[in-house]
Amino acid sequence: MRPRLVLFGDSITEMSFADGGWGAGLADRFARQADVVLRGLSGYNTRWALKVLPRAMEGAAAAGADPAAVTVFFGANDAALPDQKQAHQHVPLGEYQSNLRAICGYFKEHWPSTAIILITPPPIYEPARILDMYGDDDPSRQPERTNEAAGAYAQACMAVAKELDYPVIDIWTKMQEFPDWQTAALSDGLHFTPAGNKILFNEVVKRLASIGISLEKLPSDLPLFHDIDPKDPMKAFD
Amino acid sequence: MRPRLVLFGDSITEMSFADGGWGAGLADRFARQADVVLRGLSGYNTRWALKVLPRAMEGAAAAGADPAAVTVFFGANDAALPDQKQAHQHVPLGEYQSNLRAICGYFKEHWPSTAIILITPPPIYEPARILDMYGDDDPSRQPERTNEAAGAYAQACMAVAKELDYPVIDIWTKMQEFPDWQTAALSDGLHFTPAGNKILFNEVVKRLASIGISLEKLPSDLPLFHDIDPKDPMKAFD
Repeated sequence: MRPRLVLFGDSITEMSFADGGWGAGLADRFARQADVVLRGLSGYNTRWALKVLPRAMEGAAAAGADPAAVTVFFGANDAALPDQKQAHQHVPLGEYQSNLRAICGYFKEHWPSTAIILITPPPIYEPARILDMYGDDDPSRQPERTNEAAGAYAQACMAVAKELDYPVIDIWTKMQEFPDWQTAALSDGLHFTPAGNKILFNEVVKRLASIGISLEKLPSDLPLFHDIDPKDPMKAFD
Repeated sequence: MRPRLVLFGDSITEMSFADGGWGAGLADRFARQADVVLRGLSGYNTRWALKVLPRAMEGAAAAGADPAAVTVFFGANDAALPDQKQAHQHVPLGEYQSNLRAICGYFKEHWPSTAIILITPPPIYEPARILDMYGDDDPSRQPERTNEAAGAYAQACMAVAKELDYPVIDIWTKMQEFPDWQTAALSDGLHFTPAGNKILFNEVVKRLASIGISLEKLPSDLPLFHDIDPKDPMKAFD
């Protein structure tokens, strides 16, 4: 049976099948090798994600077959500042870490053979957040998310990954290596442009390859067209 | 459990998660309501598809839950001319129809409650096919597919849909209503540009809505962010 890749996260996962999205990119790349299962929950933090986890995963795995991998990509909402406009999304840093451990623990218990890949929250471009939240770019306003806070949650996510010995993608750091990431990679200071999606896509592909999930290593589901003998096509299906 | 939409077809299905693809568009549209399952087999005709059908559908349905709908989108390869370069993909018109009936019969038997949506082969732009096949546009060459042949298979597909009383999308006719469809909707005289994908996407969305599968009618998997009370978020999850 085709292995499955489950994408679990917040809006950056939910929106990952929009044009140029990293989820669609994975489904396209592994079109003949694996199923990509979308479980993105816009606005959710780890507290809410943990609460709905069993319901969110209904139907995500095939009966009797653990998914090959699951990406766990939360923190952008947990890192919303506790004293600003999106305070109700905020989750304290320590709870964010214990929620991540609990989410991973749930997967380990229910899908013991599934590889868990953690993804840190992305960087934040504050002027764009102010514009998105308030409709103007008055610099005296406070953004509801800061890059510094997102960075602290990214570090916290990395620490959990290290502690559990799981692969992790530090998209907070990685994205900031790109020129003009603030507007080239982010559309509103938080969500991803197609270029930002491509950065994450490339990182996920690399991390999947490091655990044996790659174009080269996964078998094809059925005979590929170029392997079908034009002189005797039906032979391929025996 | 989230309902499933299964996309079964040839390369135009297999490539439907590329940038601007109609499959990715469906996954994005129904991100909080349904799973889109990709089962595209590049180069396949209905004869080969029928042969591999049980294997192709492994894992496509959840245990004990028929998919909500399946699209059956073959014919572009069946309609390859029997005396040209891709002759080994050709399936005679009558067999194409009986294969379509058998594919639909398989779904009816295994997934009795699943809606089956047939899609006709798309139109063909012959000069682009000659270029794609031979690397030049020498008009003395013969294309391996013609729009006339594709049209005959489209009519045959429509006839099967009428006979079985299944919804059908006549993309052969629909696409030719668009200005400059030859190069605006088709990238190589056969496969779809993002604009071509959008044409099919819109038709699939309309046809799904006609059988009750729409943004408005499908329930959300879990509470939506804008329905979560900022003053008491956890209430949404009780």
